[in-house]
Amino acid sequence: MPELRHDPIQRRWIIIATDRARRPTDFTHEKASVTSVSFDPFAPGNEDKTPPEVFAIRKKGSEPNTPGWKIRVVSNKFPALKIEGDLDREGVGLYDKMNGVGAHEVVIETPELTETIATMKENHLALVLKTYRERLVDLMRDTRFRYILIFKNHGSEAGASLAHPHTQIIATPITPKIVALELESARAYYHIKERCIFCDLMKQELADGSRIVLANEHFVVYCPFASRFPFEMMVLPRVHAHRFGESSDEFLEHMAYTLKEALTRLNVALDDPPYNFMLHTAPNINTEPRRANYWETLQYDWHWHLEIIPRVTKTAGFEWGTGFYINPVPPENAAKFLREVDI
Amino acid sequence: MPELRHDPIQRRWIIIATDRARRPTDFTHEKASVTSVSFDPFAPGNEDKTPPEVFAIRKKGSEPNTPGWKIRVVSNKFPALKIEGDLDREGVGLYDKMNGVGAHEVVIETPELTETIATMKENHLALVLKTYRERLVDLMRDTRFRYILIFKNHGSEAGASLAHPHTQIIATPITPKIVALELESARAYYHIKERCIFCDLMKQELADGSRIVLANEHFVVYCPFASRFPFEMMVLPRVHAHRFGESSDEFLEHMAYTLKEALTRLNVALDDPPYNFMLHTAPNINTEPRRANYWETLQYDWHWHLEIIPRVTKTAGFEWGTGFYINPVPPENAAKFLREVDI
Repeated sequence: MPELRHDPIQRRWIIIATDRARRPTDFTHEKASVTSVSFDPFAPGNEDKTPPEVFAIRKKGSEPNTPGWKIRVVSNKFPALKIEGDLDREGVGLYDKMNGVGAHEVVIETPELTETIATMKENHLALVLKTYRERLVDLMRDTRFRYILIFKNHGSEAGASLAHPHTQIIATPITPKIVALELESARAYYHIKERCIFCDLMKQELADGSRIVLANEHFVVYCPFASRFPFEMMVLPRVHAHRFGESSDEFLEHMAYTLKEALTRLNVALDDPPYNFMLHTAPNINTEPRRANYWETLQYDWHWHLEIIPRVTKTAGFEWGTGFYINPVPPENAAKFLREVDI
Repeated sequence: MPELRHDPIQRRWIIIATDRARRPTDFTHEKASVTSVSFDPFAPGNEDKTPPEVFAIRKKGSEPNTPGWKIRVVSNKFPALKIEGDLDREGVGLYDKMNGVGAHEVVIETPELTETIATMKENHLALVLKTYRERLVDLMRDTRFRYILIFKNHGSEAGASLAHPHTQIIATPITPKIVALELESARAYYHIKERCIFCDLMKQELADGSRIVLANEHFVVYCPFASRFPFEMMVLPRVHAHRFGESSDEFLEHMAYTLKEALTRLNVALDDPPYNFMLHTAPNINTEPRRANYWETLQYDWHWHLEIIPRVTKTAGFEWGTGFYINPVPPENAAKFLREVDI
C-alpha cells in the first residue's frame, strides 16, 4: 500500500509509492563527474576568464588572480542578482517588484577538474567549508541582504552549467519562502514545547535507527521520514546551533569527514549521481530596516542543516500542480542501502 | 538590472535575470513529440495491456476494452495512490502518516500516437476536455478525496514515461499545499475587497496588454508577471467560476480552440518543447468529515484556471533551497514572441 507522510518542518505531504518501488540500480542517469572538458574557465591559468577573486586560499607568495590557489571565490560572470544599487521597492497594480539586488558568487573548490567533494582530501574539504563560512560572514555585513544561500549543483542534470567543481552563493534581499516556512515551523513548535524541533527529530531518528545513514560524535545524517526524493539526506549537527557562520575550525573539520562519508556512500550506491545540496543557516541579523525583518527574530529556535537531494527522478505536472512529491524509494530502504554499501 | 517580482496568488518571489536573458532559440531540448515507439500499450488493439477502461467515448456498437474508441480512460497500471482502503490516519512520534488512498487514472487522448493537443482537431480536443469533466465529477463523488488534479506531462523531459498522448488524473485525500495557498490568497483578498483576485488580475493584464498572449470572448491567456519558467502561460476563463466540473459543453468548446491556439503558439515558438499543464479547479465539496475540510469552505472566492509550464530550463539547488525561481525570459518578451509568432 502506498503511504502518505508528512514533514513537520517543511509542512509537506509526500507519497511513498510502493507500487512503483525501485532499487538503486533502477535509476538511470548520466554520470555526474567528468574526466575532461573542451575548455575549463575555472582551471589554474585561466584566472583572467573569471571576474576578479573576492577571496582565495593560496600558496604563500602567490599573487591574486594568478595560479597558486587552492580555493578561489569569484563573482558569477552571469549573476542572477547584482551587487550595486538600491532595492527601489515598488507596486505595479496588484503586483510587487524591486530591483534584483544581491550577490552571486562562485566557490571554485579545487584546481582539479576531476575532483569532487566526495573524492577530495578531508583537510581540503575542511578548507572549502571554511571558505563557505568566510563568505557567509562577510556577505552578512551587507544590511540589504536578508538571506545567504550556499548550494551546490553537481552534474548537468542537477543544473550545473560548468563541470569544474564549484559551489554557488546567492545573497537575496528577501528571506526565501522555504526558509521562512522552516523558521515558522520551528517557532510554532518551540512556542508550545520550549524545545527545538530539529533536536527532537534527531532524537527520534536516533532512537528509531531505521533511517540513519551515519552518526558520529558531532553529526547525524539521515534520510528524512517524508523524503521528497529517493536517497535524500539530512545532515544535522548534534549541537543546537542556528548559525553555520559561527562554526569553529575544529567543528568544520568534523563536518568535512561527515559530508565526505555521506557523499561517498551516495556515489557508490547510485553510481555517481547528479545531486544538489543546500545549506540552511539562519537569516541575516544585520538587515535594515530591522522592523521589517520579521524572519530574523525567529532564528533562535532554529537549527542549521544541510540537505542533499539526488536528482535521479523527474518532477512533473503532479509535483508542480500540488507541491506533493512521489518518492518511489521508502527512506528506510534508502538509508539501509546507504548504510550497508561498501565504501 | 535583474528584477524581483512577486506573485500575489502563489505568494512567491521570482528573479527575472536580465543578464542571463535568452531568446527562444537559445533553449535546447529534445523534441517532445514522437513519430514512433517500439511498443505502444495505449494503441488500439492493445486494450488488454492496460487495466479495464473506466470511461470511454466510442463508435456506436463497439465493445468496452476493444478498438473503436476515440478517447479512453483507464486506471494507471502503476498507481501512485490506490483506490481501495481506509486512510487510517496515524502519528509516528513527531511525524504523521496515512494510507495512500486515492485514484490515479490515465486519459488516453486519441488513438493516434503522433497526435498532440496542439495538432488534434478542435472538436476532438473538446471531447478530451469533456472527458476531464466527466472523470472529475465522478471522482468527486468519493467522499475520501479532497482534491482531484488533472495534469499533463508532454515529452520525456517533462516527466512523461509513455509517448502516446495522455493526461493523468490523481485524486488525493489531502488538499495540496499549492492549491491551499491559492485558496488562502484569494480568500484574504476577497475578505478585504469583496472581489475575486483572479478577476482583478485579468482586468489589470488586459488593460496593460504587454503580457497577453491571446484574448477571445471567453478566455484570456497571459504570461504571469512573476512567471517561474520562460514562456509560462495562465489560461483563465473570463467568467468567474470556481468549478471546472460545472462547465457546459459549449464552454468547453470555447476552451478547446483557446487551448489549441495557446499550445500551437508555444510549439512554434520553442520548436515542440516539453511542457506540463495543470488544471486548478476547486476542492471537492463532498468530503467527510466536513468539519475537517477547511479548504472546501474557501472555494467560492476562487477562480479555476489552467497553468502551462514549458520545461526548457532546469531547477537546481537555488530553487530547491529557497522556493525562488530564476527566469531568464521576461514574461513581456515571452508574450510578445508568442503573440507574434506565425501559426
